[in-house]
Amino acid sequence: MKIIIVGASGTMGKHLTNAFSKDHEIVQVSANSGDIRADITSTSSIKNMYEQAGAFDALICTAGPTYVGPWKTLTDKEFRKGIEGKMMGQINLVLIGQHYINPKGSFTLITGALTNEPQLHFANASAANGAVEGFVRAAAIELDNGIRINAVSPGVIEASPQYFPYFPGDVPVSMEHLEQGFRKSVFGAGTGQVIGVR
Amino acid sequence: MKIIIVGASGTMGKHLTNAFSKDHEIVQVSANSGDIRADITSTSSIKNMYEQAGAFDALICTAGPTYVGPWKTLTDKEFRKGIEGKMMGQINLVLIGQHYINPKGSFTLITGALTNEPQLHFANASAANGAVEGFVRAAAIELDNGIRINAVSPGVIEASPQYFPYFPGDVPVSMEHLEQGFRKSVFGAGTGQVIGVR
Repeated sequence: MKIIIVGASGTMGKHLTNAFSKDHEIVQVSANSGDIRADITSTSSIKNMYEQAGAFDALICTAGPTYVGPWKTLTDKEFRKGIEGKMMGQINLVLIGQHYINPKGSFTLITGALTNEPQLHFANASAANGAVEGFVRAAAIELDNGIRINAVSPGVIEASPQYFPYFPGDVPVSMEHLEQGFRKSVFGAGTGQVIGVR
Repeated sequence: MKIIIVGASGTMGKHLTNAFSKDHEIVQVSANSGDIRADITSTSSIKNMYEQAGAFDALICTAGPTYVGPWKTLTDKEFRKGIEGKMMGQINLVLIGQHYINPKGSFTLITGALTNEPQLHFANASAANGAVEGFVRAAAIELDNGIRINAVSPGVIEASPQYFPYFPGDVPVSMEHLEQGFRKSVFGAGTGQVIGVR
C-alpha cells in the first residue's frame, strides 16, 4: 500500500512512518523536510504535493496547528490559526485529494479529545476538531469508489509531555495505542468514524 | 430580560421574537432590517451592533449561512461561506459579545442535526455545526461572571419545506419544539450544552 503521511516529521508522523514503512511504501510530507515539502494552509501547495506523489492508497494527516492561549484576548485573528491549519488544511487535503486517490483508498485525519472534553486555552482546537469531525461524517457519505474517511481522536499523547500541564487528570496516550487508532482507520473497513484513542 | 436576536427577520428569528416579546425586551438584528442592522461576517459590524444595543442579558443567534451544493466540485472557495457565516459569524458574536454582556447572561447559538446526521450536499454545514458545538463546550469553561453558552440543534424545521427533499425520513421539527429548545438555553441554567430539538 502506498501511504502519504502529512506531518511526517512530527511526533506522531515519525512514529507512524517507522511503524508502517516495514510493510508499506511511505511518502513522507512535511513543511520543511521529507520526500515532498508542502504547506497544508495553501491549496496550491496541496495540489503540488498530490501531483508529485502520484496515485496513492491512503493519506494520513497528523498535522494540525491551532492557537493555544488565553480566552479573554482571543479574537477572530488568533482563531484563524486553527481554521487555516487543523481545519481547512485537513479538509482541503480531502477535497483536493479525492481527485488523486486510488479506488478503495482512505483518508485519515487527526482531531482530539478536546472536541468533547475542553480544556482552558484550547477553544480554537475544540472548534477545529469539531469541524473536522463533522466534515468526516459528511464526506463519508459523499466519497465514492469505496473511498473511506475517518478521524483519529487521541487524548494528550505520552510523547508530548510539554502539554501535560494543560490536561490535568488525563492519562497520556501511549504511542502504541495511537498507532492502533491509525491502523484501524487505514487497514480496517470503517468510514465516517471518529476513532477515539485513550 | 433584554434579549438580542440576531437573524430576527428569518423564519426562526420571527417566531422567537414573537414568542419572547410578550415578557422581554427584544432587540431585533438582521442584515437588512430590524432595530439594528449587522453583518455577522464582519467583526466591525458585530462590534458596532453591540455598541448600539448596549448591555444585554441574552443573545440568540439564528443566522447561519452555509454552502449547499454538490460534493465533487466543492472546494476551499465554497467552503468559506460556512466558515465566515455560521461558524466565525457566531463565534465572533461570542468572542466580542463577552465584553458587552451582563453578568449571568447567556449566548445561544444555532447548529443542527447535520453535525451527526450528514446529508448529501451539506458537508459545509456539518463542519460549521461541529465547529460551533466544539466552541460552545470550550467557551462554557472559559466564560466567567456566570455567563452561559449553549447551542440549539434542530432537525429540518416545519417552516422550511424547501429543505424537506434534502432530508429524507426526517420528521420536521415544529416551531413550538424549536422554541422550547431556545427557552431551555436562555431561561434554564445549563451551559456548554448542545440542545437537540426534534
